[in-house]
Amino acid sequence: MKLIDGKKISEKVLDEIKFSVQNRVKNNLKIPHLAAILVGDDGASKTYVNSKIKACEKVGFKSSLFKFDDSISEIELLNQIKNINENDDIDGFIVQLPLPKHINQEVILNKVSPAKDVDGFHPNNYGKMTLGIDTFIPATPAGIIELIERSEIQTEGKKCLVIGRSQIVGRPISILLSQNKSFGNSTVTVAHSRSKDLEKLCLDSDIIISAIGIPEFIKGNMIKKGSSIIDVGITRVDDLSSPKGYKIVGDVDFKSVSNTVGYITPVPGGVGPMTISMLLKNTLKACEISD
Amino acid sequence: MKLIDGKKISEKVLDEIKFSVQNRVKNNLKIPHLAAILVGDDGASKTYVNSKIKACEKVGFKSSLFKFDDSISEIELLNQIKNINENDDIDGFIVQLPLPKHINQEVILNKVSPAKDVDGFHPNNYGKMTLGIDTFIPATPAGIIELIERSEIQTEGKKCLVIGRSQIVGRPISILLSQNKSFGNSTVTVAHSRSKDLEKLCLDSDIIISAIGIPEFIKGNMIKKGSSIIDVGITRVDDLSSPKGYKIVGDVDFKSVSNTVGYITPVPGGVGPMTISMLLKNTLKACEISD
Repeated sequence: MKLIDGKKISEKVLDEIKFSVQNRVKNNLKIPHLAAILVGDDGASKTYVNSKIKACEKVGFKSSLFKFDDSISEIELLNQIKNINENDDIDGFIVQLPLPKHINQEVILNKVSPAKDVDGFHPNNYGKMTLGIDTFIPATPAGIIELIERSEIQTEGKKCLVIGRSQIVGRPISILLSQNKSFGNSTVTVAHSRSKDLEKLCLDSDIIISAIGIPEFIKGNMIKKGSSIIDVGITRVDDLSSPKGYKIVGDVDFKSVSNTVGYITPVPGGVGPMTISMLLKNTLKACEISD
Repeated sequence: MKLIDGKKISEKVLDEIKFSVQNRVKNNLKIPHLAAILVGDDGASKTYVNSKIKACEKVGFKSSLFKFDDSISEIELLNQIKNINENDDIDGFIVQLPLPKHINQEVILNKVSPAKDVDGFHPNNYGKMTLGIDTFIPATPAGIIELIERSEIQTEGKKCLVIGRSQIVGRPISILLSQNKSFGNSTVTVAHSRSKDLEKLCLDSDIIISAIGIPEFIKGNMIKKGSSIIDVGITRVDDLSSPKGYKIVGDVDFKSVSNTVGYITPVPGGVGPMTISMLLKNTLKACEISD
């Protein structure tokens, strides 16, 4: 078993971004600037946004946080997005999800300027990704690609199973891994809640990307000897032995697969740490494009 | 073996469109208007465009053909597209591909207004399709969905193999068939030139969508009893017994699979006839949206 250390790889990516920013400063180029829109008081959303802002400081980016009350109207939020779109100092921005129920998420994400859409969720950018045209790749699939490439896992001609078809993980990573790119050329199968014989599909795969959200679902007897697993699942389960009373586990039963698996990402410390670095990498890209 | 008669189904779709147009006329609503841009003198392109224009007449659409010389510059073509985008009488238009080499196809397709992009190739529409948002689905995959639905082939939970990952067939149909829609929910695998063990993949599938372009590649011993095959391949092969000296064959060895296959589309007369009807269906939709 070879552990893919997402925390270490993420730090490396952040170091590379920091180095680029320092170079930009030396050359009197603009400092990348990421903005975040946060609506309401959701605890998890606050935590996510704060870690993004913190990471910006770490690499030398400028950052801005636009906080709005839960009661903000859709029209007012669209107006705020228009202002950010037109603000030349801001290179990229994200709208932290979920939004309150009275706001149509699709309408909002459609209004983010594709040139500043560092989350990659605007249909225009999502379409470019699907068509294989250079664009902003959403953070989680971009992070998975980074982990695969830096671990030198061969993808060409390999059978790859993606479990889950979500817009933020399963769908994009399934498309990317089957494209004719250096990190692609896999024969990709997408499984989901209506799929049958998931165990057989797993057993038949060289690479498994699991984003199913069922704790410790994948066991050692379900995988092929030497296969690689990227575990995107993050579930909080009760754990009385922990001072917090819970622990975070992935889709993979880590102990059970340890004698069979080739490469594997741990949870926590695998895919999770990559997402913020990839968001910042997209922001640097947006800034470089507008140079 | 049950034959999927694409010609008959296509006629039915055209009849439905004609009926809608007649109803629009009765209600004093605008008559749908499709325009086509044709650059240069390519014989096949001319034939395609002419059949589209002819189909428009058949269903009662207005149509316009904009013909330009091979020597038209990219800027001039973009200008012409701008004019068509701004022409309120035109509901939808297509740019017949391929374009001459000095014109960047990606740049051109990006300038077609997404609201009039009845081919569905603009990144914004392609992104919406990938995200499962209502939009214009490209004609070939839309035609395949129509054939599957009207033949009442069950897709939910079925293993579906898509051979080919092109932007116009393989990629979109693989996405659509795995989405959580009435025609979707299949467990879809995308195979391509770098895939290994294609025979085993075929044998393991309930539904095969083949767009590989190798004449008579799929034989009876490569498929599961009762499986359904949609044959998108169209290759011209020598045939001395035919007065033309050639015949059109698909990816499937029709005779060889006939005792094993469930549903199958013939070539010609399967997927081919569907594409024009789906283009017209998209044009009707564009017209209805702008009512």
